Amino acid sequence: MRGAVLTGLNEPLEIVDDLEVIEPRAGEVKVKMHTTGLCHSDLSVINGTIMQPMPCVLGHEGAGVIEAVGDGVTDVSPGDHVVLSFVSQCGNCYFCKRHEPYLCEKGTQAMATAALYDGTPAFSRGGKPVTQMSGCGTFAEYTVVPAGGVVKIDDSISLEAAALVGCGVTTGVGAVLNTAEVKPGSTVAVIGTGGVGLNVIQGAVVAGAEKIIAVDLLDNKLEMAKQFGATDVVNAGSGNPVAEVQSLTEGRGADYTFEVIGMAATMTQAYQMARRGGTAVMVGVPKMGELFSVMGFFPVYENKAIKGCWYGSADTRRDFPEYLDLYKEGKLKLDELITREFTLDEINDGFEALKNGEVARGVVRYD
Amino acid sequence: MRGAVLTGLNEPLEIVDDLEVIEPRAGEVKVKMHTTGLCHSDLSVINGTIMQPMPCVLGHEGAGVIEAVGDGVTDVSPGDHVVLSFVSQCGNCYFCKRHEPYLCEKGTQAMATAALYDGTPAFSRGGKPVTQMSGCGTFAEYTVVPAGGVVKIDDSISLEAAALVGCGVTTGVGAVLNTAEVKPGSTVAVIGTGGVGLNVIQGAVVAGAEKIIAVDLLDNKLEMAKQFGATDVVNAGSGNPVAEVQSLTEGRGADYTFEVIGMAATMTQAYQMARRGGTAVMVGVPKMGELFSVMGFFPVYENKAIKGCWYGSADTRRDFPEYLDLYKEGKLKLDELITREFTLDEINDGFEALKNGEVARGVVRYD
Repeated sequence: MRGAVLTGLNEPLEIVDDLEVIEPRAGEVKVKMHTTGLCHSDLSVINGTIMQPMPCVLGHEGAGVIEAVGDGVTDVSPGDHVVLSFVSQCGNCYFCKRHEPYLCEKGTQAMATAALYDGTPAFSRGGKPVTQMSGCGTFAEYTVVPAGGVVKIDDSISLEAAALVGCGVTTGVGAVLNTAEVKPGSTVAVIGTGGVGLNVIQGAVVAGAEKIIAVDLLDNKLEMAKQFGATDVVNAGSGNPVAEVQSLTEGRGADYTFEVIGMAATMTQAYQMARRGGTAVMVGVPKMGELFSVMGFFPVYENKAIKGCWYGSADTRRDFPEYLDLYKEGKLKLDELITREFTLDEINDGFEALKNGEVARGVVRYD
Repeated sequence: MRGAVLTGLNEPLEIVDDLEVIEPRAGEVKVKMHTTGLCHSDLSVINGTIMQPMPCVLGHEGAGVIEAVGDGVTDVSPGDHVVLSFVSQCGNCYFCKRHEPYLCEKGTQAMATAALYDGTPAFSRGGKPVTQMSGCGTFAEYTVVPAGGVVKIDDSISLEAAALVGCGVTTGVGAVLNTAEVKPGSTVAVIGTGGVGLNVIQGAVVAGAEKIIAVDLLDNKLEMAKQFGATDVVNAGSGNPVAEVQSLTEGRGADYTFEVIGMAATMTQAYQMARRGGTAVMVGVPKMGELFSVMGFFPVYENKAIKGCWYGSADTRRDFPEYLDLYKEGKLKLDELITREFTLDEINDGFEALKNGEVARGVVRYD
């Protein structure tokens, strides 16, 4: 079958047609991929910010149809439409038992090893193993993942739209609804208005935020932010974005701020943009080694909270259907997030467009 | 009247007998002080970590009896027993309206200016103004404070015990119950077991924590920590306290950690001692200029929260009576916190003992 493989850091993905995939074993499912999203986290693997063993089939955001299930899998059957989760939930570990399934130990291990729970990846080429990003590997026509790595959805929902729920939507909307628990009437500032940032913005709309300030360097992205619900925009290139957010919030700063870039400098800005007693949520993943610093006096005196947000603090079985319900009700824009479709052969062009801020979300359809 | 005045940084307090205090004006109350606690925050004013205009009557933790009330004061009357609050609550500002009265704008202004709401302090000597620490100034036989700076308590409660509720108890217990919202069955680590740290420990007992790990450099303080409910102790001088806390928590780290010293280095340790998905609460106030840093990747990946805690996120009108109820029920040890009593003349000795870790709380009684 066909797939897109990363063979070396900063290399273009290699489009191959000799990829093989195992049949699902006990507790695993095989998915015929329908749509996959191109995400900044894929770029982070390409440039080494996120480390995955190579060669690796990238892709961790996607939707498709169950092709086959292994022994003991009862919650999905062949023909079911599913969204893949980039952190699978085993349901039995320390974190799953504490209702923190986004930290699932097995899911985290699968993510770190880019493999299934037994440590072997689903893919191979010429008999040699090929890993699967985050235990998913959605840049292939078929993949095999743990049963807890898929969530069944309503057949009536567009699989293109549903694909985005697997990563960007859940991360952004979850940062607002689960991690920050934004209250109606609040003020929100969002630094970075890419695919995830736009979902933070629309999550804030769903939460009933009164003022939503989008901060970015590109005016075209800030325009898009307005379409997703930003009430105010700040071009960070034109001065001091912290002061601008403060002046838009009566000098206090916002109740909630979100860093959705992944840079220590903007993490500090997000902290500074939060009002006394406010909350700064860190969504973007900086390079290892970057130090995030704040003046030690201030967290205490200012009674601020800094919250790291992994995968939108998601319980995928609860959240995926909820977000898709919001989509059906017209309260979450998913179709509008997809700014361009690419073929698998064009996937490197898709990442160029993402790097240049030309697309909110590009997707690849397998058909 | 008599009082203890700071006239220069790092000077001993001057015990004077010619201090004058105004009569309470509209919205103010005059308190005959009964007991005041000696707190590390007083030391922080003496050494310049916390800035207050001088000359200044120190003291911000105390209890006494209402002597007189100004116009419009209806919630307390002469003869009422009261605990003073080091952040008064005006009830009408941005923060009071949002149920964050520990950030009250007028209370914060009084704290920063060491004066009453109109900017003038209650004290003077020879016609020259003398400020009152944090808008309180409890190191004097009488003080005048805003009506929102006192909370009426049950006459049957010892005023010695009640005095401690004004700062140390509320800060420590509130950090657990309000800021962290520690859940029953959790694991807790506390760095620093002075007057506030012991209250974090007993707050954790009240919250139903299963394992409470006390971390300090002094074995006598760790012994005391055990008496207040610590289940495990770590002498930080004997190795790597982060690794020791991790080994006491199955390698994961604690669900909640508390920094109760006020140093950037131990803030980072508190962060590191928290498990993935855990919460590190910063209670100690570091010097201005100290940078608190963590690796930027980790808050996100580890989904940790860092929460600054000011005054135990207290609503004094709700919390003071609640903590005193817990005291009456034997669930909070207050008498045991008072390790020594000093006279006003011995107050500098009291601070020496505090600096040397010889006392959890020293108090001065005016009688």
